[in-house]
Amino acid sequence: MKTDIEIAQSTELQPIAEVVKKLGITFDDLELYGKYKAKLTFDKIKAAEKNKVGKLILVTAINPTPAGEGKSTITIGLADALNKIGKKAMIAIREPSLGPVMGIKGGAAGGGYAQVLPMEDINLHFTGDMHAITTANNALSALIDNHLHQGNELKIDQRRIIWKRVVDLNDRALRHVTVGLGSPVNGIPREDGFDITVASEIMAILCLAKDIKDLKERLANIVIGYRYDRTPVYVRDLKVEGALALILKEALKPNLVQTIYGSPAFVHGGPFANIAHGCNSVLATSTALHLADYTVTEAGFGADLGAEKFLDIKTPNLPTSPDAVVIVATIRALKMNGGLAKDELSQENIEAVKAGFANLARHVENIRKYGIPAVVAINEFATDTQNEIATLRELCAQIDVPVELASVWADGPDGGVALAETLVETINSTPANYKRLYDDELTVEEKISQIAREIYRADKVIFEKKAKTQMTQIEKNGWDKLPICMAKTQYSFSDDPALLGAPKGFTITIRDLVPKLGAGFIVALTGDVMTMPGLPKKPAALNMDVTDDGAALGLF
Amino acid sequence: MKTDIEIAQSTELQPIAEVVKKLGITFDDLELYGKYKAKLTFDKIKAAEKNKVGKLILVTAINPTPAGEGKSTITIGLADALNKIGKKAMIAIREPSLGPVMGIKGGAAGGGYAQVLPMEDINLHFTGDMHAITTANNALSALIDNHLHQGNELKIDQRRIIWKRVVDLNDRALRHVTVGLGSPVNGIPREDGFDITVASEIMAILCLAKDIKDLKERLANIVIGYRYDRTPVYVRDLKVEGALALILKEALKPNLVQTIYGSPAFVHGGPFANIAHGCNSVLATSTALHLADYTVTEAGFGADLGAEKFLDIKTPNLPTSPDAVVIVATIRALKMNGGLAKDELSQENIEAVKAGFANLARHVENIRKYGIPAVVAINEFATDTQNEIATLRELCAQIDVPVELASVWADGPDGGVALAETLVETINSTPANYKRLYDDELTVEEKISQIAREIYRADKVIFEKKAKTQMTQIEKNGWDKLPICMAKTQYSFSDDPALLGAPKGFTITIRDLVPKLGAGFIVALTGDVMTMPGLPKKPAALNMDVTDDGAALGLF
Repeated sequence: MKTDIEIAQSTELQPIAEVVKKLGITFDDLELYGKYKAKLTFDKIKAAEKNKVGKLILVTAINPTPAGEGKSTITIGLADALNKIGKKAMIAIREPSLGPVMGIKGGAAGGGYAQVLPMEDINLHFTGDMHAITTANNALSALIDNHLHQGNELKIDQRRIIWKRVVDLNDRALRHVTVGLGSPVNGIPREDGFDITVASEIMAILCLAKDIKDLKERLANIVIGYRYDRTPVYVRDLKVEGALALILKEALKPNLVQTIYGSPAFVHGGPFANIAHGCNSVLATSTALHLADYTVTEAGFGADLGAEKFLDIKTPNLPTSPDAVVIVATIRALKMNGGLAKDELSQENIEAVKAGFANLARHVENIRKYGIPAVVAINEFATDTQNEIATLRELCAQIDVPVELASVWADGPDGGVALAETLVETINSTPANYKRLYDDELTVEEKISQIAREIYRADKVIFEKKAKTQMTQIEKNGWDKLPICMAKTQYSFSDDPALLGAPKGFTITIRDLVPKLGAGFIVALTGDVMTMPGLPKKPAALNMDVTDDGAALGLF
Repeated sequence: MKTDIEIAQSTELQPIAEVVKKLGITFDDLELYGKYKAKLTFDKIKAAEKNKVGKLILVTAINPTPAGEGKSTITIGLADALNKIGKKAMIAIREPSLGPVMGIKGGAAGGGYAQVLPMEDINLHFTGDMHAITTANNALSALIDNHLHQGNELKIDQRRIIWKRVVDLNDRALRHVTVGLGSPVNGIPREDGFDITVASEIMAILCLAKDIKDLKERLANIVIGYRYDRTPVYVRDLKVEGALALILKEALKPNLVQTIYGSPAFVHGGPFANIAHGCNSVLATSTALHLADYTVTEAGFGADLGAEKFLDIKTPNLPTSPDAVVIVATIRALKMNGGLAKDELSQENIEAVKAGFANLARHVENIRKYGIPAVVAINEFATDTQNEIATLRELCAQIDVPVELASVWADGPDGGVALAETLVETINSTPANYKRLYDDELTVEEKISQIAREIYRADKVIFEKKAKTQMTQIEKNGWDKLPICMAKTQYSFSDDPALLGAPKGFTITIRDLVPKLGAGFIVALTGDVMTMPGLPKKPAALNMDVTDDGAALGLF
């Protein structure tokens, strides 16, 4: 069996300028990065806004398990299949962070015969967006420390700086550091830490900004910490939003690439789905909607986290709301949600499918609360049995949700035709009637409680003392009308990663609230949230190499 | 008067594919980064090796002063002038680091009517080379700390890790840090520090590597620290040279841009001229030599540091040695070397010109030791008087060195025609007979002493106790046959920045020796060497901005 990189490298790519011709994009609308990658000019983005708005399909999933779901693979394969059945379809997905690529993943651009290409470039530096974000983030840190060192005119309390540095790597040793050591010429000593770049507020900002003006305003609104008198310090107080926007101006332009089967794809932005909202850029999704008849996009983690944030945070910034939501599952992952261990998944187990279905059913129910029709996509594995599939079909019929098998990983577009046809039919027959879950005018406590009760199905929400104090502070600063960005384990509806399936009778505990004024939301943390992963004992980097003539090895 | 960025933005650029046609480069040889920047493919680099080798002109300078010399401006303007008089000329220079751009400089791509374009891109992310180096450097750090954390199989002594992290920013607070704090899951606590990216050994390696194979071998040879038994630990012991080379494979390809007047230019690599050798990449210079009849290149700081390293470290890696060396000076800088303060420079002062000439004369003498003819270029300023210029001409005549005024900053190529003609004449009439200053087979002490006595003109060289111990260690490890990369203040021939002009009777003190096995040299430090600059009270970043339609402001 061919590996992902072998499939990718055996594919003959078309020049990206050819791929996007069918979207009405000319050579002059592109800023090429090599022959197969390009950024779209702001002029073309603006011009496209006059086009009609196409249909939007959001791909989300059940709660992830170590068995894997293949959300990106389905997203890519579904767009290929839509193109195959004669629709004009486009993809809008996130770009991968180098940290996980060098750590465990080895690559994140789909899989098998459903990949975006050139996968080597996408997995490495791509068009430099991550680096621009890293640089802007750390330039702000350097400017803050320089401000402290040069007299601290703003009276920033060095113990209350919340802005952290970043690297686009998995580097646990940088989680907690002390800086400014050695001598008075090296600045003011203080505690600091590094997050992974995709956890930076700047990544969230880049993914929500409508244009350069909006980008600059959002950057100016970032709260970097507090003064000795506890009043907030904004980037605009430091007067460096112009410099930061300058560093980010190219990164804001969406990146165009192609799938193995020549479908055009925006791959742009990749905020963490815990500390941030976990979706590709608004600019990419909006532009895709103006260029194609069907845009297939994706949200991070399971639907309780990813889809909720897509629908409550990202959607209000888009020209339309999703016309359908695809919930991806695998028989294997359902069985894990049904209580099996990873080494038991290869045997047929109907009861486990039934038990795990509760997880899927709850996600379907949740999506319907937003007024959007759901479709279930089963990403096929060779170990799935006919009985298990029949059971699942029956269970889906009971809750009246369409379900289709998809084998795009093995078969490319052909493996997604049934899913594509069902989706088109669903969109045509069941118009969406989107409504947000909560009203921003509610209090922070009310908004969080509503998400916890209606989406997670918690019985109770507890706010720890620290979070309560922060709520008072947030209200005092006039930040309480912002939406909430929940940071919770992706493995469970609850805040306990071990509670799989569809748990009931649990409590959600809110420990910490972090204002992200630039992104425009308040992050609510339900536990320790990992914003800097570590490397495993044998990192994927050990397998990576490059041939003497420059071909990548060891990405998969 | 127009600013640099105004001149740059009012220039109509040609597509880079057009600019390089005259060098025999086709569209397929290019990997475009937008319309005006491109990397050259390895295939074309290899193919060009069969061409004949052109003439090489090295531009260097007197010891720098706050008055400024304009070495890059002369380099660029000289190539424009050579093209103007009908020669096929090309530029090979370094790419700027974002740190100084955001700190003091605001930009580093020439000046006035002698600039490489697009200056905004070159000064910001360009083609991402710096980011790739930053990432490779920090990936190695993360892999080292992960190795410690995961059991430390190699028995690396965490107190003796010499590999530091980097950012491409001026960030003094990161000079000395502690990492791995917080809890056992965050790795092994240890002291660390950040250098600026251009001070990374990986930058030096990228600038000396001949191809990917050589790059990988050099990466494998990096010494990251020592074991508890004091034996060195190499990157090859960690088995990650493949991953690092993969991260760097695109950055190794030289970048092509154009000057205001359409001269093709390689702008590639930019190692610090103190801790490293301070020249653009071997690959860019070699390829330029195979593509053009005249290649104009540059070395960092004054000739005592920059030209010495160019001639003793870089030249042995090139297909030819320089045919002529241009030593850039300004009347103002000569007067500062002659003892004037910065605020006294606008008044005529013949005596100061005479006194300062000693500095220039010594550099001319040094260059001649390498068997290469020297030409003096005076970068004209409006405050220069006829008397001062006449004095300088007379002094140059006394030591039989050609001298030409150049006004390329104000006048573009026209301002460099006299210099270009003198150079061509010198090259035709005075064939170079290059010989290196020292023999690598000498001991470390002998090599350093030879540089200090023959180039700096020190009476005595003192090796501090630490340096003596290190020399023994270096010999024991079999590293003593490597060339020496001197790290010394750029402001003086001596190791005291206040000793301007042509000091005599001084002592050079060697404090520290750092093996850079990947770069292939031993760094000899003559004092505290700044490998991480700080930001000034009012950083250039405060003036930077971007317009709503994406145009850069505040770079100059």
